Amino acid sequence: MSLTVVGSMAFDALETPFGKTDKIVGGAASYISLAASYFVQPVNVVSVVGGDFDQDHIQLMHERHISTEGVQVKENEKSFFWSGRYFNDMNSRETLVTELNVLGDFDPVIPQSYQGCEFLMLGNLAPQVQKTVIERLHERPKLVVMDTMNFWMDIALDDLKETMALVDVLSINDEEARQLSGEYSLVKAAKKIVAMGPRFLIIKKGEHGALLFHGENVFFAPALPLEEVFDPTGAGDTFAGGFIGYLASTGDTSFENMKRAVIYGSAMASFCVEKFGTERLKNLTQQDIDSRVQKFVELVAFDTILQ
Amino acid sequence: MSLTVVGSMAFDALETPFGKTDKIVGGAASYISLAASYFVQPVNVVSVVGGDFDQDHIQLMHERHISTEGVQVKENEKSFFWSGRYFNDMNSRETLVTELNVLGDFDPVIPQSYQGCEFLMLGNLAPQVQKTVIERLHERPKLVVMDTMNFWMDIALDDLKETMALVDVLSINDEEARQLSGEYSLVKAAKKIVAMGPRFLIIKKGEHGALLFHGENVFFAPALPLEEVFDPTGAGDTFAGGFIGYLASTGDTSFENMKRAVIYGSAMASFCVEKFGTERLKNLTQQDIDSRVQKFVELVAFDTILQ
Repeated sequence: MSLTVVGSMAFDALETPFGKTDKIVGGAASYISLAASYFVQPVNVVSVVGGDFDQDHIQLMHERHISTEGVQVKENEKSFFWSGRYFNDMNSRETLVTELNVLGDFDPVIPQSYQGCEFLMLGNLAPQVQKTVIERLHERPKLVVMDTMNFWMDIALDDLKETMALVDVLSINDEEARQLSGEYSLVKAAKKIVAMGPRFLIIKKGEHGALLFHGENVFFAPALPLEEVFDPTGAGDTFAGGFIGYLASTGDTSFENMKRAVIYGSAMASFCVEKFGTERLKNLTQQDIDSRVQKFVELVAFDTILQ
Repeated sequence: MSLTVVGSMAFDALETPFGKTDKIVGGAASYISLAASYFVQPVNVVSVVGGDFDQDHIQLMHERHISTEGVQVKENEKSFFWSGRYFNDMNSRETLVTELNVLGDFDPVIPQSYQGCEFLMLGNLAPQVQKTVIERLHERPKLVVMDTMNFWMDIALDDLKETMALVDVLSINDEEARQLSGEYSLVKAAKKIVAMGPRFLIIKKGEHGALLFHGENVFFAPALPLEEVFDPTGAGDTFAGGFIGYLASTGDTSFENMKRAVIYGSAMASFCVEKFGTERLKNLTQQDIDSRVQKFVELVAFDTILQ
């Protein structure tokens, strides 16, 4: 089934305990669309870049059947740029530089060929822009998934709440869930957040896995214990891409299938962190993905003696 | 099969965001023996208390078929006392008071009736005392599980390493695993620690679950997402009690069975934190435990489409 993704396409410069990069391609839509492309094709991207964006990356997207028809190119402007440094624990980071550039006045355009898409992934962006995308689709997609971050809770909480009320699945991390709900317990936080609109809530806990809440049901997916986390940038977006890509490929939005989708998302994220930027997402095989998913199966498998 | 537990029996005074207690019964052996008593009876305890210890609690232990024959009573001395305060996140705490009292010169005595025990749980104590217990058993038990903490890594690392080399399973938390190994990655930490002696390593991550390492195998058990963690004191000991109690009840020390034991330990720990101290461990039913284990089964269950 058809999938549309909206989000940033950007340059990142990263510093981790393992090394540092020059400007490399990043941005939510880059990670989401690459991850999703292993499950469903084409993936339709809505974004905006400057004249400086990496043409080889655009080429790679096309090879992976990712449509960039909805990617505006502002030839005389610069792409969004973010630079950050990770601390030794790789769970915390500091922002060194943020240059909004073309993202500052992003007015998303939906090509006619994207209309009628059944799955919509709203990557992290100003909630007002995310809402505009929903409004500019003539038909409401079967499933709308929204990612966001604490930044918007700080400066655009009302907009965020308005957009949240329009989506089916919200994906945030544990600290953001606590900030948004004012509750420390994630179980209590989930109840308050689900009452704000989304029927499903994913709380990402980084190296500690992810929780999926729906009504009285809760599902937990671990993160794979890794020898080395090389670069965590984009792991959350890659998770989202694997998640919605799997859902779009199956067309099944039941809670049971969402659990599988969370596992596929977690598997894709576990690849992402093995190399800098989007590098590890460029040439995976189906066998790579299947054997990684199998590791998740084995990680939590036990035979219970209960009848 | 028979189980012997060594550890402190103590008084704790606790402060959490939910309230504070006067002196209540605590100590590793109190939690471990109560938790284990739901799986195997009798549980043989080796410990030391002062003349001030709570006789009602000793009575409760007897009702639960916990033998206190190995509990020395020093009538003119006081029991070990610890007082602490938990911060709002319930994951960090500060120690307010530590009075070693009878524990200062604890010389463990193994009653004849405890000899020949097949399972031995070394609760957190000075590693030299833990080692003495192993040495005073005429026959080496089938399985020896050791719990310890960062305190001993700071002040008695050589002793700790000597004792570790004698045990089958080591149980520590994530920060302790990092301190002991000098590695941030828990996968790398596990490799280094297992090379120090124990064939199995359990790394407890509190609200983020627990990992079991053995050779190239790794198993992850989540913690149950709870609305409220009322008092985390003793959760690690209760986990250990459920873990070794389940193993002793089945007599099976395979990796497959240890995975189940980790789930039973996690289930017992999830009860422990619901009330202050040992309160919640006093009158559980088999049905309580089974239905809690069932929640763990459901929490991670998904049908994979992989063949």
